[in-house]
Amino acid sequence: MVCGKKRVGEELRCKSCGSPFEIRTGFHYRENIEDNFPYIKNMISLGESETPIFHGDDFDLKLDYMLPTFSYKDRGSRILISHIADIRDSYGITRISEDSSGNAGASIAAYGSAAGLAVDIYVPETVAGRKFSQIQAYGANVIKVKGSREDVQSAAERSESFYASHVLRPEFRDGIRTLAYEIYRQYDRMPRNIYIPVSAGTLLLGLYSGLRHLMESGEIAEMPAIVAVQTEAVSPLCAKINGLNYDPDNKLSSIADALVSRKPVLLQKMYQVISEYGRCMTVSDDEIIEARNRLAKKGFLVEYSSATVYAAFRKKPQENSLLVLTGSGLKNDS
Amino acid sequence: MVCGKKRVGEELRCKSCGSPFEIRTGFHYRENIEDNFPYIKNMISLGESETPIFHGDDFDLKLDYMLPTFSYKDRGSRILISHIADIRDSYGITRISEDSSGNAGASIAAYGSAAGLAVDIYVPETVAGRKFSQIQAYGANVIKVKGSREDVQSAAERSESFYASHVLRPEFRDGIRTLAYEIYRQYDRMPRNIYIPVSAGTLLLGLYSGLRHLMESGEIAEMPAIVAVQTEAVSPLCAKINGLNYDPDNKLSSIADALVSRKPVLLQKMYQVISEYGRCMTVSDDEIIEARNRLAKKGFLVEYSSATVYAAFRKKPQENSLLVLTGSGLKNDS
Ligand SMILES: Cc1ncc(COP(=O)(O)O)c(C=O)c1O
Ligand SMILES: Cc1ncc(COP(=O)(O)O)c(C=O)c1O
Ligand SMILES: [Zn+2]
Ligand SMILES: [Zn+2]
Repeated sequence: MVCGKKRVGEELRCKSCGSPFEIRTGFHYRENIEDNFPYIKNMISLGESETPIFHGDDFDLKLDYMLPTFSYKDRGSRILISHIADIRDSYGITRISEDSSGNAGASIAAYGSAAGLAVDIYVPETVAGRKFSQIQAYGANVIKVKGSREDVQSAAERSESFYASHVLRPEFRDGIRTLAYEIYRQYDRMPRNIYIPVSAGTLLLGLYSGLRHLMESGEIAEMPAIVAVQTEAVSPLCAKINGLNYDPDNKLSSIADALVSRKPVLLQKMYQVISEYGRCMTVSDDEIIEARNRLAKKGFLVEYSSATVYAAFRKKPQENSLLVLTGSGLKNDS
Repeated sequence: MVCGKKRVGEELRCKSCGSPFEIRTGFHYRENIEDNFPYIKNMISLGESETPIFHGDDFDLKLDYMLPTFSYKDRGSRILISHIADIRDSYGITRISEDSSGNAGASIAAYGSAAGLAVDIYVPETVAGRKFSQIQAYGANVIKVKGSREDVQSAAERSESFYASHVLRPEFRDGIRTLAYEIYRQYDRMPRNIYIPVSAGTLLLGLYSGLRHLMESGEIAEMPAIVAVQTEAVSPLCAKINGLNYDPDNKLSSIADALVSRKPVLLQKMYQVISEYGRCMTVSDDEIIEARNRLAKKGFLVEYSSATVYAAFRKKPQENSLLVLTGSGLKNDS
């Protein structure tokens, strides 16, 4: 990804520069969305369908929690797990591991179980109750790990299972391209601004990759601006973009329990994308709570991490904006 | 409904025979689903879309929790609340009330708030934690009532607010017709058996009404069989159909917390429909838990009340069966 070396097998990081890999699309955008993943032999299906757009007076909403496990993560898990199921026999894979603060874990658990794999999900001790029980419900083995988010990751990576990292494996991010394709299909004219919450950066980079594919295929003429939203507590991307000081070891916490990547491995790439095509905004817990309650009063119940985009929009409303709502409100403990 | 008298205004029950009313469709089925509700002037929208069908090896699933508040109730609430919003000025309605053990309450709360109405939801003291908090999240006022399910109802009905009963008001049941229309659109050939959970009977009667409309319009040639599923604890319909003794005052409880109508006011009508077009099956808690876990392992997380249909199917599998999954598993406390 960074040095340009090609991936030779299923390794997680480039042997020369240490970066995770990225999948390139070397073909014209195809109308049937699934055809844009030619490397998948058997596409697992859990009844996914295009997630709805709600057209409001002042902004539009993409209800991207209307997916099998009620978060946008299913876009990535579907492709990653389909890929792992494709190679399981050659690699002798029967058991996978993943680390997650909740939504990715539930999503990998559901697709993994559906594919007939045993699933181990490593979570921080502080994982929210409902997210923990959702992961367990899919039949996964959930392991609580003490320490930092990095400690959770290394526990998952060190395990005997095939490490199905949603951050490091490029197929997960690549699956998020479907979000860009759906938006393109659902609009006559693309929205000018797309708001998304950003933590590890898979949503951001996957969306960007789909938009770039549409550009390169001549389907759209300009890139929409991507508005990356982070919390004041965990804002490595915004700090870098806006030239602010940020201490990744600060002890600040936030009500947005899914946005916890303090030292995202994909930061450099996110920085490049947002410098060129967007901007980054931070929001406070009070703003998030207010935004979440206002969305619920309009009939849209989302989790706090997801309400961040409406909080950001409310600070500086812009015409032609689409807010991507990434997680159902039923995911929060209250 | 029973004596055939016409409704003159917004009354809940026929003055002659005491029954709730029923809306008749006196026109040919229309391809655009919303056009089948000609009495609605302004249709409220929360980004509803056709809920997915999953085609399994042995049975199909209709994921009818992929709706704004994560249960099938949104089909009914959308039509009922749109109707109430249409008449609000003539009737001076600013505040509505409803009684519910959870899902209908959340659904009425979401649509009611979205329509700009104040909403009071009366719930039994035993309401599940997550359902309680979902109702509150939409900004509704939730009132816990001691006593039986009937006591909760009369508290809601006696309140000063416009009583938006999902059981008594015909517009709610009528909104469930959309389920039949979607199934019809999603299949080349209708499934032979449709499994649904039954409590108050709005799902059953609404589905039946849509299917009958399709029959009368010549769109389908035969009625699918409707398999009504109840718990062993609360089985008034199955008892009547299968000629068994049933004590509505038994103190049995069930893990299916949404299926609690022990003396459903719509029982006679349900009995007529199921005697002619279907059958009724009961399932035990153990069977429900097993069914729920098996569905989750396949990637479909549903609430226990909703897993009843798979429990029934497993007891006696039949070809060409569609199981309607009515509530998300995120609704249950564990
Ligand atoms: C609901 C929700 N929204 C947004 C995000 C951010 O996605 P990413 O970590 O890919 O930046 C997450 C990640 O956990 C999430 O769970
Ligand atoms: C998830 C779920 N399924 C099924 C039903 C049964 O519907 P009805 O009460 O209309 O029979 C309910 C009713 O509360 C429900 O919440
Ligand atoms: Zn490299
Ligand atoms: Zn009458």
